[in-house]
Amino acid sequence: MDQISFGAVDPAALRQAFRTVRDHTESLSAALTPEDQAIQSMPDASPAKWHRAHTTWFFEQFLLLPHDRSYRPYDEAFGFLFNSYYEALGARYPRATRGLVTRPGAAAVSAYRAHVDAAVCRLIDAAPGTVRDTVRDLVTLGLHHEQQHQELLLTDMLHAFAQNPLAWRGDGLAVVPGWTAPRGEDGPTRFLDRPDGIVEIGHPGGGFGFDNEFPRHRALLQPHRLANRLVRNAEWLAFMQDGGYRQAALWMSDGFVMTKAEGWDAPMHWRPDGEGGWLQVSPGGLSVMDPDQPVRHISWYEADAFARWAGARLPTEQELEASAQDLPEFHSHVWQWTNSAYLAYPGFRPVPGAIGEYNGKFMINQMVLRGSSAATPPGHARDSYRNFFQPEKRWQMSGLRLARDS
Amino acid sequence: MDQISFGAVDPAALRQAFRTVRDHTESLSAALTPEDQAIQSMPDASPAKWHRAHTTWFFEQFLLLPHDRSYRPYDEAFGFLFNSYYEALGARYPRATRGLVTRPGAAAVSAYRAHVDAAVCRLIDAAPGTVRDTVRDLVTLGLHHEQQHQELLLTDMLHAFAQNPLAWRGDGLAVVPGWTAPRGEDGPTRFLDRPDGIVEIGHPGGGFGFDNEFPRHRALLQPHRLANRLVRNAEWLAFMQDGGYRQAALWMSDGFVMTKAEGWDAPMHWRPDGEGGWLQVSPGGLSVMDPDQPVRHISWYEADAFARWAGARLPTEQELEASAQDLPEFHSHVWQWTNSAYLAYPGFRPVPGAIGEYNGKFMINQMVLRGSSAATPPGHARDSYRNFFQPEKRWQMSGLRLARDS
Amino acid sequence: MDQISFGAVDPAALRQAFRTVRDHTESLSAALTPEDQAIQSMPDASPAKWHRAHTTWFFEQFLLLPHDRSYRPYDEAFGFLFNSYYEALGARYPRATRGLVTRPGAAAVSAYRAHVDAAVCRLIDAAPGTVRDTVRDLVTLGLHHEQQHQELLLTDMLHAFAQNPLAWRGDGLAVVPGWTAPRGEDGPTRFLDRPDGIVEIGHPGGGFGFDNEFPRHRALLQPHRLANRLVRNAEWLAFMQDGGYRQAALWMSDGFVMTKAEGWDAPMHWRPDGEGGWLQVSPGGLSVMDPDQPVRHISWYEADAFARWAGARLPTEQELEASAQDLPEFHSHVWQWTNSAYLAYPGFRPVPGAIGEYNGKFMINQMVLRGSSAATPPGHARDSYRNFFQPEKRWQMSGLRLARDS
Amino acid sequence: MDQISFGAVDPAALRQAFRTVRDHTESLSAALTPEDQAIQSMPDASPAKWHRAHTTWFFEQFLLLPHDRSYRPYDEAFGFLFNSYYEALGARYPRATRGLVTRPGAAAVSAYRAHVDAAVCRLIDAAPGTVRDTVRDLVTLGLHHEQQHQELLLTDMLHAFAQNPLAWRGDGLAVVPGWTAPRGEDGPTRFLDRPDGIVEIGHPGGGFGFDNEFPRHRALLQPHRLANRLVRNAEWLAFMQDGGYRQAALWMSDGFVMTKAEGWDAPMHWRPDGEGGWLQVSPGGLSVMDPDQPVRHISWYEADAFARWAGARLPTEQELEASAQDLPEFHSHVWQWTNSAYLAYPGFRPVPGAIGEYNGKFMINQMVLRGSSAATPPGHARDSYRNFFQPEKRWQMSGLRLARDS
Repeated sequence: MDQISFGAVDPAALRQAFRTVRDHTESLSAALTPEDQAIQSMPDASPAKWHRAHTTWFFEQFLLLPHDRSYRPYDEAFGFLFNSYYEALGARYPRATRGLVTRPGAAAVSAYRAHVDAAVCRLIDAAPGTVRDTVRDLVTLGLHHEQQHQELLLTDMLHAFAQNPLAWRGDGLAVVPGWTAPRGEDGPTRFLDRPDGIVEIGHPGGGFGFDNEFPRHRALLQPHRLANRLVRNAEWLAFMQDGGYRQAALWMSDGFVMTKAEGWDAPMHWRPDGEGGWLQVSPGGLSVMDPDQPVRHISWYEADAFARWAGARLPTEQELEASAQDLPEFHSHVWQWTNSAYLAYPGFRPVPGAIGEYNGKFMINQMVLRGSSAATPPGHARDSYRNFFQPEKRWQMSGLRLARDS
Repeated sequence: MDQISFGAVDPAALRQAFRTVRDHTESLSAALTPEDQAIQSMPDASPAKWHRAHTTWFFEQFLLLPHDRSYRPYDEAFGFLFNSYYEALGARYPRATRGLVTRPGAAAVSAYRAHVDAAVCRLIDAAPGTVRDTVRDLVTLGLHHEQQHQELLLTDMLHAFAQNPLAWRGDGLAVVPGWTAPRGEDGPTRFLDRPDGIVEIGHPGGGFGFDNEFPRHRALLQPHRLANRLVRNAEWLAFMQDGGYRQAALWMSDGFVMTKAEGWDAPMHWRPDGEGGWLQVSPGGLSVMDPDQPVRHISWYEADAFARWAGARLPTEQELEASAQDLPEFHSHVWQWTNSAYLAYPGFRPVPGAIGEYNGKFMINQMVLRGSSAATPPGHARDSYRNFFQPEKRWQMSGLRLARDS
Repeated sequence: MDQISFGAVDPAALRQAFRTVRDHTESLSAALTPEDQAIQSMPDASPAKWHRAHTTWFFEQFLLLPHDRSYRPYDEAFGFLFNSYYEALGARYPRATRGLVTRPGAAAVSAYRAHVDAAVCRLIDAAPGTVRDTVRDLVTLGLHHEQQHQELLLTDMLHAFAQNPLAWRGDGLAVVPGWTAPRGEDGPTRFLDRPDGIVEIGHPGGGFGFDNEFPRHRALLQPHRLANRLVRNAEWLAFMQDGGYRQAALWMSDGFVMTKAEGWDAPMHWRPDGEGGWLQVSPGGLSVMDPDQPVRHISWYEADAFARWAGARLPTEQELEASAQDLPEFHSHVWQWTNSAYLAYPGFRPVPGAIGEYNGKFMINQMVLRGSSAATPPGHARDSYRNFFQPEKRWQMSGLRLARDS
Repeated sequence: MDQISFGAVDPAALRQAFRTVRDHTESLSAALTPEDQAIQSMPDASPAKWHRAHTTWFFEQFLLLPHDRSYRPYDEAFGFLFNSYYEALGARYPRATRGLVTRPGAAAVSAYRAHVDAAVCRLIDAAPGTVRDTVRDLVTLGLHHEQQHQELLLTDMLHAFAQNPLAWRGDGLAVVPGWTAPRGEDGPTRFLDRPDGIVEIGHPGGGFGFDNEFPRHRALLQPHRLANRLVRNAEWLAFMQDGGYRQAALWMSDGFVMTKAEGWDAPMHWRPDGEGGWLQVSPGGLSVMDPDQPVRHISWYEADAFARWAGARLPTEQELEASAQDLPEFHSHVWQWTNSAYLAYPGFRPVPGAIGEYNGKFMINQMVLRGSSAATPPGHARDSYRNFFQPEKRWQMSGLRLARDS
């Protein structure tokens, strides 16, 4: 699939982008049974069919209902069932029990998607000549929103499968059969000297961006160095073999408590092979852990401890953004934990209305990740993109790149 | 369906009984989607497909593997996945997360059932002339076991549906479409005088019984009276309207804490209709609460408080068993909570081996229920039958019959 | 201290009994610092000064305020602070946080006790000639109530000290310095044959008894045998060495879960001595575990598992009461767990008013213990006495005596 | 008490500083009973006597044992009991149950303090002419450490007293009898324009500072404005009356969940007076809430929501530090929440050894507070001082100053 241009103003192009993204969601659930799609394996995750329905609800709620006077809600109950977290839109079904709602089932969600898709396409076409700004902007936002859920659908489903004992013996439980991690750079790790000084940070304008990437502003960098490669599984194994998970001096206090409470001794989804080696449950199923791949499914706590063990530190989000164009493996392997807390940029203003809840209300207790992962859909990420999770989360494809003061 | 005779020794009759019970399980899940069957709505409940697989595993584990030398396990992993609580049989998948195992799915479970059914029928037929005792006894035990799970499948699924907001508006979420509660006795409630003295309690022999019904033994009854009818919804409503759920003096201390912690103010599965009345989610779907039906889905705590409010008490299990033949509505409406703790009968001995875990290890912290419910499969219950649950459980079809000292 | 007669009707004798019991409470806290008295080491326990104040509040609440028109509450707040569980008396301070109330302190509680003591003695003396029945009955109840709290004060404080690392090295943390367990019977354990048939159970009348001992009624005993001795520490050690804590087949299901969750591998308050042997924290401080002493501080789950391991069972409360006069070591060593659930006797009626909450509302989820322990104050227990705790509790001086069917 | 100079190199001056700080700790517990000092009212808090002992242990552990060859540990067990969180120093008693250790009691802790005080003074005097650098530095660190615990002792004890129902009726439960909040600035709130550009941030050198204030480094400020006053109780009341605690749009998502879960509807330690007004439990006891005082005992979540309600934002820590010299009410009223996450400064290096655990391992999930409070001991705070707590904590004297973009 080629890069999708979200700047499209031509109705046909927008409709094409819409169809491409919507189809990609369905392709991600093509190998899933109805039972697979119904399951929620932890409160952080959501069922696959919930993702499919919620992304549809988003178009219905924010585009069709306000901007298509002839549109009637597909099912009144869906507004309650598929609202994720928008307080301004009234009561909603509790997140932690999404896995209890067996109906509407996978097929009923498909029908809901088809209904909304048709209405959106009609709305796009109905606009004269050049698509009206609002419709274009809301469709574009809806597609980026859906792409975020595509990544979550993949990692949530991977988590669910990884709980199934059948997955540990290689029974072919694959979210995306045939999926393999992209091959990274060969050669040794080197640290690239980066200049200090004032840089421009944030979305440069001229295309889509989430509100948390704005406004563009100046930031001051200290002199520093950045690794040309992501940390590899082989290096992580060395950390493990050196007792990294048991050396308190390497860890944040909260993180060390967490490793013991949760019994962490390897990245998430690694499984001992019974002969001293390791297997890994991935979207493609069970395979032998590949030492050359960038390590993934680690928490910020683990990334931070590893960096300390390696005599390095995590980069800041500004350091990564400033060098994004020059850094190998910045995109499409693993999200890279930074040592930047997820906070508003200077001058940040959320957009008015319910959509203003999209990002702003999560700006506490989370750390920023930069780049993008092998699970990120094509055309979704940008150099200015700010992903964010709590420091103990590890079910995303999160890894790290080392930095050093210079 | 007629009463099944479990005393059958003729292979054809046993095979017929086997088919009847096995088919009944499948009929109970006929209206369920694959998603419905995958869900576990609370730790006490299990997914419908788990019940279908576990009852099959029971035949495989206790009948086929020990007694059919040519039988090979259908899938090695199933012994781990579908063992419920038999410690003697090794490690097992944790109960609380049965709802996370999406595969094997509903269709794969059907295949497993068919495979085991064929093997069991072959084993029955292979026995010469009169079926061998052991095979007959194990088939019989397995069928009674399966009937217990038929009742759980129904109440577990009802609980799951009742969590779905769609059920509250009557969207046709019915475990058994068309299901209605059986009609009870008309006329006023009267208290029947019962004699005191020594009675024989426990299974009289001559047919199937669970180990907890043995040995038959003498018990001493005090003079008492028993209501000729079960407590009705209308009476329960009077208790509610009198503030029964808020009067501490009516309740056991633990029970009063529970009502407040859980927000109990009506039986489980009742829903306010928004106009001061009540609806009820039942196996047939949403309906108006019928004041003439025996109240069901109440905990022991609620039954005990109601009895105190009514100037009565709960009967003992011996009182009920001694009068079972004379009591209207003893069977097929609701299980009747007693004031008897679930303890071993004098001289109780569990059978040797893993099957000895069937009942004995649960003889603490539970109260006995007697009779049977509208969800109990035909031919399953007996006057000596001892059902048991913790006093806070209310997802079964449990109700009460009043007693008084005389 | 001699046996106190609670049947006293002579004012001087009643006043003397009152003083004796009240003084005994103070003697139990004589070795405790103010800090010791303020602590609550778990939700089941209460601070020593709370016991001292609550028993005083009991006289104020149930005797002085209703029956002495000139009496004014010592401090209005104490009615809130020192009500234990009487719903009929209004709001009360939450039990689980009693350890947060540093004031009134130990000295202020002493002043409260002195004030109430003087008022009670005046009330006793003010009654003409023979003390009025109500005053006598309430004083008597209050003294038995206080004796129950004396035992709790001792076991609660023992639990608190046992949490202090200093106690594990023998720093002289003794609730009652010099305390030693009474010496039991020598000689081997024998099983005494007991007859079956109908016996009279319950308080025979003619002296004080708690409401749960009434009414006296007939019960039917099965033929059985009872051990002439309590189970000893040496026998418990054999159970431990045989892997008793890790054999699922010996345990109730809930109990086996509990042993693993709580890490039980020995009786409460045992500590490894570092050389393969055991120490025991007792009211007298740290000492070497004595193999000849009756085992104490075990839960019902442990007692039940031990009995199964020993090829025996726990006795019923009726069996013990019927033989109480003939059984060595029935009183003053350890409370003996029975296999009887704590339920109302046939015909039981709680007394009207708040005092009716004393026992009746706890008749669920508890098991009966019979006899009395080395911590039971002199003159408190009776053969018909029914003690009760949840099956997982082990901070009382609870042990066991074996029984067998015959 | 005058400002203490920690730069002292003259032994007499250092000894004098030592005595002054140590005496201040004892003055803070002068009004506390032994019971008061023993209590831990929540896991975040510690008993007063623990603070008194732990600060003493700090001198013993880091100064006396390494640098006085003749010193012997006062009690081997104290190293286990009074280690707070230093992993490098071995096992330690669990924080959450510090309130269970009744012995050593308050008096025994006094003896421990006297013993260590004498040893420290001997060590100071024993150094020739000018005190050796290491001893001076460790004494100085120990004194700043003790001052931090002085503030905690006050706020921890305030929290404990505030749980006691007697405090709510004004029974004279005062941590520091006679304590009153310092009077703030009169006049209206104005916003002062602050320049943008590069500033120097961090400790300038030349006196004591904690490691987290180093290294001094350049930071870039955006144009902004800062309020000349702290937010007052009257303004907070307006926020409350406007439904501030119930408007989701004002809150971070986690914070809104917290307000509902914890039932927050006013600052901590406020109590309704029963007539529509408010009382406040303060270190001086119960008093009428004063609308002119800076609001205190609020969480970051509340401060952030208030700022949003006021059309403003929280300042960054760099903004506050850059203007600290010009800002009224910067010190000695309330700590001021910032919108800066507590992270390492560029180039931060913890000191080697166990003392390196002092600050660095807490640099996650916490927000920075700047300034100082009425509970901060004289001479403790600096303009570069970085205090930090999790965003839900509110038992410290934390308040806020508003900022705006300009």
